[in-house]
Amino acid sequence: MKKHIVVIAGDGIGQEVTTVGKQVLDRIAERFGHEFTYDEALIGHAAIEATGNPLPEETITKSKQSDAILFGAVGHPKYDNDPSAKVRPEQGLLGIRKALGLYANLRPIKLFDELLQASSIKPEFLQGADILFFRELTGDVYFGEKGRRDDGNTAYDLMIYSRYEVERIAVKAFDAAMTRRKKLCSVDKANVLESSRLWREVVQDVAKRYPEVEVEHQFIDTAAMLLIKDPRRFDVVVTGNLFGDILTDEASQIAGSMGMLASASIGDTTGLYEPIHGSAHDITGKGVANPLASVLSVALMLEISFGMKAEAEAVVDAIDQVLKAGFRTRDIANANTPADLILGTEAMGKQVLSKL
Amino acid sequence: MKKHIVVIAGDGIGQEVTTVGKQVLDRIAERFGHEFTYDEALIGHAAIEATGNPLPEETITKSKQSDAILFGAVGHPKYDNDPSAKVRPEQGLLGIRKALGLYANLRPIKLFDELLQASSIKPEFLQGADILFFRELTGDVYFGEKGRRDDGNTAYDLMIYSRYEVERIAVKAFDAAMTRRKKLCSVDKANVLESSRLWREVVQDVAKRYPEVEVEHQFIDTAAMLLIKDPRRFDVVVTGNLFGDILTDEASQIAGSMGMLASASIGDTTGLYEPIHGSAHDITGKGVANPLASVLSVALMLEISFGMKAEAEAVVDAIDQVLKAGFRTRDIANANTPADLILGTEAMGKQVLSKL
Ligand SMILES: CC(C)[C@H](C(=O)O)[C@@H](O)C(=O)O
Ligand SMILES: CC(C)[C@H](C(=O)O)[C@@H](O)C(=O)O
Repeated sequence: MKKHIVVIAGDGIGQEVTTVGKQVLDRIAERFGHEFTYDEALIGHAAIEATGNPLPEETITKSKQSDAILFGAVGHPKYDNDPSAKVRPEQGLLGIRKALGLYANLRPIKLFDELLQASSIKPEFLQGADILFFRELTGDVYFGEKGRRDDGNTAYDLMIYSRYEVERIAVKAFDAAMTRRKKLCSVDKANVLESSRLWREVVQDVAKRYPEVEVEHQFIDTAAMLLIKDPRRFDVVVTGNLFGDILTDEASQIAGSMGMLASASIGDTTGLYEPIHGSAHDITGKGVANPLASVLSVALMLEISFGMKAEAEAVVDAIDQVLKAGFRTRDIANANTPADLILGTEAMGKQVLSKL
Repeated sequence: MKKHIVVIAGDGIGQEVTTVGKQVLDRIAERFGHEFTYDEALIGHAAIEATGNPLPEETITKSKQSDAILFGAVGHPKYDNDPSAKVRPEQGLLGIRKALGLYANLRPIKLFDELLQASSIKPEFLQGADILFFRELTGDVYFGEKGRRDDGNTAYDLMIYSRYEVERIAVKAFDAAMTRRKKLCSVDKANVLESSRLWREVVQDVAKRYPEVEVEHQFIDTAAMLLIKDPRRFDVVVTGNLFGDILTDEASQIAGSMGMLASASIGDTTGLYEPIHGSAHDITGKGVANPLASVLSVALMLEISFGMKAEAEAVVDAIDQVLKAGFRTRDIANANTPADLILGTEAMGKQVLSKL
């Protein structure tokens, strides 16, 4: 097959990890006889520096014309410490999600057996955990009206959901549940928020079309607790943009490290694939970032956007072999890992390629 | 000292656990020569059933006239499964927080040594963890304007903060940090939310008055992850109403169980003391609820509202002894706990009283 992929590396370790992701794509093309062509585009701080705009028009055009997007990360400490900055790297990421209509963010949380000891959570609570999050990605307090009043002394963001927004993500989540263990947990804060009450109403409505799926509703506070207390109770979890952001970062501890988690953002057009981790400026340029989340993003792209199931499995299998051979990046190493098995970004990438 | 306490037991296990809390207050009065008088008041589902109103006027009046409030819990599954209900138990709790101006919710997370094994988190990550959360309690998306549009097909809640609201909780948090390890972490989502950018601005301003306190700012998603990955890195954490709700429930896993965590809601007038756990209708009436969060609420009341430090220590010490003797409620027991040491609510209360 012929596929055209736009690489949007973005900021910080985004550059380093997508380099490895792209190498994996090339190897897959070679091995399975596909033809992958690439383009690059700017976003975030990198785009602000080059053009003044965190999301140049060209990036949107290139993305729309592509078959899939391999995304790195956005963010820069400069803006984090300056709450008054008007132009911010994150506007690029939020903007592209909106511009491409990427309303469903899939975040699979699955632990590689070899990493059972990498987490702060006891292995006996983790073994067998396998959660698929559906995070709504183009609505909620992220995109509601925001601003200031009273000479800047009051600030607000509108948390807002419409029926069709909840319905389309709920349908995707229920469809996925049907192919898995047929359990769905919807997370909201319906005991306090009106937008959550609409959320719950709609999920209850959609549930009627899936009588085989066992549905539960949890409040976000309880869900944040249960995720650590008993991760295996969850199968598919569907939730809003803000709650999904929080829960999936928390859930990274189930997989041992943020460096092991990928996500797929899908909607009506081109899909975007990115690690859950951010730009991580504290380790940028040091060559120590874990590239496996970007490699796993590639696996999701192959499967979801290109329908290449065998190719996706080959990628995941290669990671599995590398971990079984004992290789670790710093974030998934522990006190017992021999120093010569702790690899940097590039070396870890080479190991994965060698198994492909 | 003479003190007048209003007991607002509320719903579900609220009744069972505050009964034990009140017994502990009585024993303390006896042992230390104080005179505690009591009144009772209705709230939540219990109040709706009796009066149609989740927060009867009388409850507010009695509360204002008291020296402290011992609170149970509110909530009922009936409303959770009916998103369209107009009158809801939680309105009682939110209403009393607002009516009494209880803008600061203190949630200490401290692990009793004996419970090091009760958590799903590995003991080596927990040992020594000691976090004091300051959750803002009368603002944010909890109290912003909420409603529906488009024939009910769109629902919204306004997330909103004003400078003075952030400032007064920040000051309380910094003051507390000065008496502890002098570290403060402020949690927001300033890379996306305008209200968070105001939050961060104000915390940065207040920080200038406390040059000795080491301050960091974390995004809520990162904080939810770090809390599990490395709980010991936190000392004082200050955050908004919604993020505080989520983080403190999650943090309950550091202390082994929700059943071990108490909170103090303070402001300009009477303080309110309550377990972090909810009404837990699944175990209501079974006599198995852990009463220790209510007992710890009493300890907080003695210390914060009444300035009775020795009395508060006596209570915490009694719990420590009971745990050292091996007694557990179901939620903090594990596979190795001998059956005869697993106690119900009343029996656990008796054990605590026997050590006082
Ligand atoms: C960078 C930030 C805007 C983003 C978000 O909050 O959505 C990130 O945390 C994520 O989860 O993709
Ligand atoms: C019952 C509910 C409204 C309440 C809240 O969200 O504040 C509870 O979860 C809490 O943390 O006190």
